[in-house]
Amino acid sequence: MRLKVRLLDLEAGGKFIVVLNRDDAEDMGVSGLSRVRISYANRWLTAIVNVALESVTRGYIGVYNEVKRFLNLRDGDEVDVEAAHFPLSVYYIRNKLSGRKLSYEEIFEIVRDVVSGNLSEIEIAAFVTALHTFGLDLDEATSLSMAMVETGNRLELKKPLIVDKHSIGGVPGDKTTLLVVPIIAASGLTIPKSSSRSITSAAGTADRAEVLMPVTLGIEEMREVVERTNGCIVWGGALDLAPADDIFIRVEHPLSIDPLLLPSIMSKKKAVGANLLVIDIPTGRGTKIKTIGEADLLAKDFIELGRRLGIRVQCAVTYGEQPVGYAIGPALEAWEALNTIMGKSQSYDLIDKAVHIAGILLEMSGKADGNGRAIALEILRSGKAEEKLREIISAQGGDPKIKPDDIVLGSERFTVHSKRGGVILWIDNASIVEAARLAGAPRDKGAGVLLHKKIGDKVSEGDALATIFAERASKLERAISLFEEFPVIGVGDRMEMLIHEVKERPVAKRTFVLER
Amino acid sequence: MRLKVRLLDLEAGGKFIVVLNRDDAEDMGVSGLSRVRISYANRWLTAIVNVALESVTRGYIGVYNEVKRFLNLRDGDEVDVEAAHFPLSVYYIRNKLSGRKLSYEEIFEIVRDVVSGNLSEIEIAAFVTALHTFGLDLDEATSLSMAMVETGNRLELKKPLIVDKHSIGGVPGDKTTLLVVPIIAASGLTIPKSSSRSITSAAGTADRAEVLMPVTLGIEEMREVVERTNGCIVWGGALDLAPADDIFIRVEHPLSIDPLLLPSIMSKKKAVGANLLVIDIPTGRGTKIKTIGEADLLAKDFIELGRRLGIRVQCAVTYGEQPVGYAIGPALEAWEALNTIMGKSQSYDLIDKAVHIAGILLEMSGKADGNGRAIALEILRSGKAEEKLREIISAQGGDPKIKPDDIVLGSERFTVHSKRGGVILWIDNASIVEAARLAGAPRDKGAGVLLHKKIGDKVSEGDALATIFAERASKLERAISLFEEFPVIGVGDRMEMLIHEVKERPVAKRTFVLER
Repeated sequence: MRLKVRLLDLEAGGKFIVVLNRDDAEDMGVSGLSRVRISYANRWLTAIVNVALESVTRGYIGVYNEVKRFLNLRDGDEVDVEAAHFPLSVYYIRNKLSGRKLSYEEIFEIVRDVVSGNLSEIEIAAFVTALHTFGLDLDEATSLSMAMVETGNRLELKKPLIVDKHSIGGVPGDKTTLLVVPIIAASGLTIPKSSSRSITSAAGTADRAEVLMPVTLGIEEMREVVERTNGCIVWGGALDLAPADDIFIRVEHPLSIDPLLLPSIMSKKKAVGANLLVIDIPTGRGTKIKTIGEADLLAKDFIELGRRLGIRVQCAVTYGEQPVGYAIGPALEAWEALNTIMGKSQSYDLIDKAVHIAGILLEMSGKADGNGRAIALEILRSGKAEEKLREIISAQGGDPKIKPDDIVLGSERFTVHSKRGGVILWIDNASIVEAARLAGAPRDKGAGVLLHKKIGDKVSEGDALATIFAERASKLERAISLFEEFPVIGVGDRMEMLIHEVKERPVAKRTFVLER
Repeated sequence: MRLKVRLLDLEAGGKFIVVLNRDDAEDMGVSGLSRVRISYANRWLTAIVNVALESVTRGYIGVYNEVKRFLNLRDGDEVDVEAAHFPLSVYYIRNKLSGRKLSYEEIFEIVRDVVSGNLSEIEIAAFVTALHTFGLDLDEATSLSMAMVETGNRLELKKPLIVDKHSIGGVPGDKTTLLVVPIIAASGLTIPKSSSRSITSAAGTADRAEVLMPVTLGIEEMREVVERTNGCIVWGGALDLAPADDIFIRVEHPLSIDPLLLPSIMSKKKAVGANLLVIDIPTGRGTKIKTIGEADLLAKDFIELGRRLGIRVQCAVTYGEQPVGYAIGPALEAWEALNTIMGKSQSYDLIDKAVHIAGILLEMSGKADGNGRAIALEILRSGKAEEKLREIISAQGGDPKIKPDDIVLGSERFTVHSKRGGVILWIDNASIVEAARLAGAPRDKGAGVLLHKKIGDKVSEGDALATIFAERASKLERAISLFEEFPVIGVGDRMEMLIHEVKERPVAKRTFVLER
């Protein structure tokens, strides 16, 4: 059926939705929540149907903004609309619901239908849940990785050796990438780094980097930056590498499950053509991976999945029981990273982590032989890393002369003081993240938390423990009350043995970190 | 935030959706697909947010029809809107995703949030999928049944003994209820029967009964009919008994899974106050339950679940490898049932099934002692069942004088003839249902299939096997092509041993029956 477009000026949060007149819908044999295939100028998509009695008249199709953008429609354009065929991929999802292992062809069909809007949220949610409950083996993880690569863009650099690093996330304040990329690019290796924005954290690497330079680059712009500077730090969202992942994440998030962790990460690395890769696995209470045993098992899977995808992988299991460095929140972290690369700060743990990870890449690539860490540290100390960072900033369209003082931190501030003397025994990652988010991070870039002490530091009564930064007073208040109500930073003489009491059936609100 | 209602005249197929201006949404801290709680005149619901730039201006809230109806809103009404709290029930769903058993309190919270729109389709789909993959034990099935009763209407009849029957469905043409209810009501027992419409079949009992009388009654009207006649045959959809079930079904349907079968059925029986119940389990290829062993295990669960809910249950495992009687499709089935109860037809299997099931109820209630079947047959033969059916028709607002000839059958007809002589070896239930649906059933009430032969009947070449009925010629054509392309009715001298060949990886499009 040919219908005239009526733009509705409505956003559905990422879903394809159209409105049909009830009579047109009946003629096509579709009803509310059915799906139709809409074709226009060689592109097509599948959209969910809402039905109108009068607000959309016969012969017209009301179009949400997501559909308008995907098909590039204007008011009055004529589109072809037909009832969507029942997707074959639903049968494959049902196979997984019965606990069957899926073949590559089946997985490819599912992923392709996810990307083209052919599957409903119910079907995707069932697929993700079944992957979570039955698990997916390495064959399926390989198939999912490849299918996600095949259904997206690829960065085709003409280089024989491409390295990359990735943190599975979960530790707050982790601005390591802002140091590793310039160190590695300065060493002469190629590192086309794409990063994500925050989902559940106070800042993603893309949020941090955006304080220093534009990060929303297309894939061609990314290629140019990497060809010019050997590296880049861009947001993955505009690149369309493995676009299925964004849709899977939308379903995983409310459920707090992440069965697609491995394929999601590895597909993006494969799509940029990486052949050497370090995966950082922050480990400890308050991160994604709680124990070293768990981290080692995950590392084993990453290494084997990498082998199957033609990527040599090493993993770094890192200490994650407190934030990395002192700053948490986009601007604060960019500020700390810039200070550190300029030799103006002593965030020892941040430097240690960055040169360790850069060192592993240098050794994997043959640029170092047992002294990778020392070479990385030398590149950092010598100012070559800073020079390279400024080159990258410039290539991405930022100001290469940016100084730490140029970075705007939230002007609403509150400092939390210690109520007693002693030693910092623990810092609760989840509460630090929640405080930073209550203060406005990551949307308010200047919001966050700056720690003054880390685990093991001595404090006297009244010493400053942390400063909360916000852009709005009302948000500052909400973050302050969190510090008042919950123990965020533990000060004591020695460990107290009781963690907490369980008096009634508890609600298991465990922290969930979806950053990848 | 107080917002003025703007009715959008849009249907979302059952979901609660509202449209906010982007600035209002940002002030509330919600974005597309977030959820808001909307209160008006002591009622409230949770709705999904879509966002508009201009089509909904600041201070207004665009309202879909589902929301309008639930809250009884008019244009310009002022409603209170706030960001929805994160529902506790999501944590409980996550417990099930980790394979934990759920307590009654957790299940109640989930079911309550399902009914009030507090949970998204993603969350409900994950819950249903986890119930399917991990299974639910009898404690959980009991909790689900009770929670579904508690969150809906209850029929409170002042009778000590209330009986009921239910078929788990899956066999086409099963109009048994249209005979059992009048037989039982004529015996003096009370049987407040609520039935469903077709979901995947050619006709549900509510669709069949609607040909004879109105079936969309409210719970008070149902009570009046039962108090007057001892029985009724009404559509469950307008009664709001266990309303969570309708929402679960919407999720189960595309996934072809039905973990809620037991709680769904039993909650509705509990809600009408039944204390004696016969469950009919049609068994055989082409039905839901393929083997007698499987049927027995299911019967065991029904009996035990009934015991926990205070309902005495017996099960009838019945032959389901071909349609019951000869007619498939709403009007055809009503016509066959009316003919049968008037003694004008000899659908032997239909009569046999009806008097067996009625007989079990008569014996369970003490009205019969080993001779239940004979008493039921006597009530049928004597005309008392017909008289009672006409009483019920009249009480529900239909014409008590209705004759079989008054029933309008589709005027577009095509008769399929046998291409060879032999014996009917099999009748494929799924193909018969598909043919009836292609012909227009259940929406076109006069559409369907009338068999002329059943399994074991002898046929000569050219004998009529079945007649397809439709209301529109185009639909008749589609049903005819099915008969031409696929083997629907098998005629032969003896069984052929090859069922089918598998030449490549098959797509497992197994039949799924969601009728309950």
